[in-house]
Amino acid sequence: MNPIYLDYAASTPLKKEVLDKMLPYMTDCYGNASSIHSFGRKQNQAVDQSRRLLAKLINGSYDEIYFVSGGTEADNWALKGIAESYQEKGKHIIVSNIEHPAVLNTAKSLEDKGYEVTYLEADLNGFVPLESLEKAIRKDTILVSIMFVNNEIGTIQDIKNIGRLCREREVLFHTDAVQAFGYIPIDVKDLNIDLMSMSSHKIYGPTGIGGLYIRKGIKIKSILEGGAQERKRRAGTSHVSGIVGFSEAARLRYEALDELNQKMVDKRTYLKEQLDNNFEFKVNGHANRHPGSLNIMINAIKGDTLLMNLDLAGIAVSAGSACSSGSVNPSPVLLAIGLTKEEAKASIRMTIGDMTTYEEIDYVVEKLTEIVERLKK
Amino acid sequence: MNPIYLDYAASTPLKKEVLDKMLPYMTDCYGNASSIHSFGRKQNQAVDQSRRLLAKLINGSYDEIYFVSGGTEADNWALKGIAESYQEKGKHIIVSNIEHPAVLNTAKSLEDKGYEVTYLEADLNGFVPLESLEKAIRKDTILVSIMFVNNEIGTIQDIKNIGRLCREREVLFHTDAVQAFGYIPIDVKDLNIDLMSMSSHKIYGPTGIGGLYIRKGIKIKSILEGGAQERKRRAGTSHVSGIVGFSEAARLRYEALDELNQKMVDKRTYLKEQLDNNFEFKVNGHANRHPGSLNIMINAIKGDTLLMNLDLAGIAVSAGSACSSGSVNPSPVLLAIGLTKEEAKASIRMTIGDMTTYEEIDYVVEKLTEIVERLKK
Repeated sequence: MNPIYLDYAASTPLKKEVLDKMLPYMTDCYGNASSIHSFGRKQNQAVDQSRRLLAKLINGSYDEIYFVSGGTEADNWALKGIAESYQEKGKHIIVSNIEHPAVLNTAKSLEDKGYEVTYLEADLNGFVPLESLEKAIRKDTILVSIMFVNNEIGTIQDIKNIGRLCREREVLFHTDAVQAFGYIPIDVKDLNIDLMSMSSHKIYGPTGIGGLYIRKGIKIKSILEGGAQERKRRAGTSHVSGIVGFSEAARLRYEALDELNQKMVDKRTYLKEQLDNNFEFKVNGHANRHPGSLNIMINAIKGDTLLMNLDLAGIAVSAGSACSSGSVNPSPVLLAIGLTKEEAKASIRMTIGDMTTYEEIDYVVEKLTEIVERLKK
Repeated sequence: MNPIYLDYAASTPLKKEVLDKMLPYMTDCYGNASSIHSFGRKQNQAVDQSRRLLAKLINGSYDEIYFVSGGTEADNWALKGIAESYQEKGKHIIVSNIEHPAVLNTAKSLEDKGYEVTYLEADLNGFVPLESLEKAIRKDTILVSIMFVNNEIGTIQDIKNIGRLCREREVLFHTDAVQAFGYIPIDVKDLNIDLMSMSSHKIYGPTGIGGLYIRKGIKIKSILEGGAQERKRRAGTSHVSGIVGFSEAARLRYEALDELNQKMVDKRTYLKEQLDNNFEFKVNGHANRHPGSLNIMINAIKGDTLLMNLDLAGIAVSAGSACSSGSVNPSPVLLAIGLTKEEAKASIRMTIGDMTTYEEIDYVVEKLTEIVERLKK
């Protein structure tokens, strides 16, 4: 059997249809999208079309979509750009304690620069309680950043009420939607989202490209300065093939959203049920989560040993997020939702994708069961 | 005749051999390079190999190469990162007045943050005089940033002596080598370069990827925070296909450097000689310049009108840099080297590339001559 990939939350393969859309921009169509000659105009048209497409998918307008190098840059820009632009109003920022490192570490760097950050605690299910957000908002709060879907446990936050609360209290609301975009219907107006980070390689698009939605009228300092690209807000030659691939990947996923998500849920349910028959485990997080996400804790088993054994059996899953892998520490997200260090270390994240087959799941169930039994001895 | 591209300094087409190297990382090889399972390891190996390859090409070591989203990010990182890390030593930075906007606008943003910037004036040939640099360096100078090859007039700076002077005076030296890397042999040790920006899409590699060389031992604050990628200095999922393409493009160019450059020079000489037979013009810049660059001033002709007419004839050249196109202002670089507004506006940049043919040049000479004659009437 070929190696089996159950780590779609870390990165997804590029879809063939997406690559096909990109290829003309890696062969015949070249030039700099900022150039005014015919070569540049063709590039620019493709960027423009992609921008309109993405805007439409989230009910934004095309001048609210900004292309960046990925989710990390989007998060950095949102936090640093808003912090700098609104510091006269205040220097207080609120994030949750289960954010991606791109938000958490950016928040920490803002603390070094004299900003104050409140880290809201998620509850045992991985939700940020609305009441604690309500209490945390102050007169000098300028930004709330709470992720849409958690990358480790898949929990889907109550973004609508968080957005409404922020809007009522006149605080800007940013959400890291890297794990949500392409999997959950998003209407930025309905959800009162002011800024939203998106990534391409989580939705079967290429790496090296992502987007930041910035609601019209919001001031935001640039973090990459230079040329006049992206309405003078984000300098750098447009990564046209990436942009085209990103928007096409988003289109393909949203076009068949219900069907694709139902298939993921069906496979995940099947995986969980089969495992349930074989050994005991507990699902981390909550039922209201990303359709592909299954993070489980297997008592008395060390996740990293399990991972290594699974890898030897040709199965790719993860312990925490890819961005913190290599680290020997237990997942901060699992600790944040109340697991002990031992429980966190006994957890693995399996994430299912559009390419996952039932045969693959059967093989994973067989091998995982064998390994768990062996390690328990 | 197909449209003719003479704007290689703005962006180059992706070479077929480069795309071929990238494609496996856009199809079979997927996953997140930070993941520790077999999928991740394969990605990581490719990144590592690319890093070693690039390091070797510039006589650096593999842990001195950092992948970023492009030249603009590299320039921003170098200036902002060094400024923040060395502010205790001083807050004075020196750049030239013919830098790319990615350096100039970043320098300006540092001025807003309390840094002092000296803008060294280039001479009439586009060179930054060593004496003025020598005079400008102060006790509190922390960084000198002078571009290797100018993007508009192609002038190649005396990087070796600039580097030596900076090293003697114990000031860090950054060079934006976006237009030099892949065209000029670069030995970072011999040239005393501390930081160097590189770009992929200027050397027939993909867009959305570039590199920053950072000499070992140099402190530099990150500008993109998050995961532990790039030795914890630049967060964000590795853009593996881009990285592989970037290093392959660099390899291909350096492998045949003399031959490729000679071909460019021959074509450029042919272009210039043919034009010389037909109408009067002056070459902006200096003979010691990028092998593909020919920036000419045609008296009494408006560059933008000329550009438009050339575009209609299917010929793509540019007025200034692509990054400042759309702007109605004359090129700041041409003004900086002593041209009047009228002269700057009467100038066009033609840049020749590896794919340029003599047939294309003949056509350009014919059409350009026709248009110049028509516009002069």
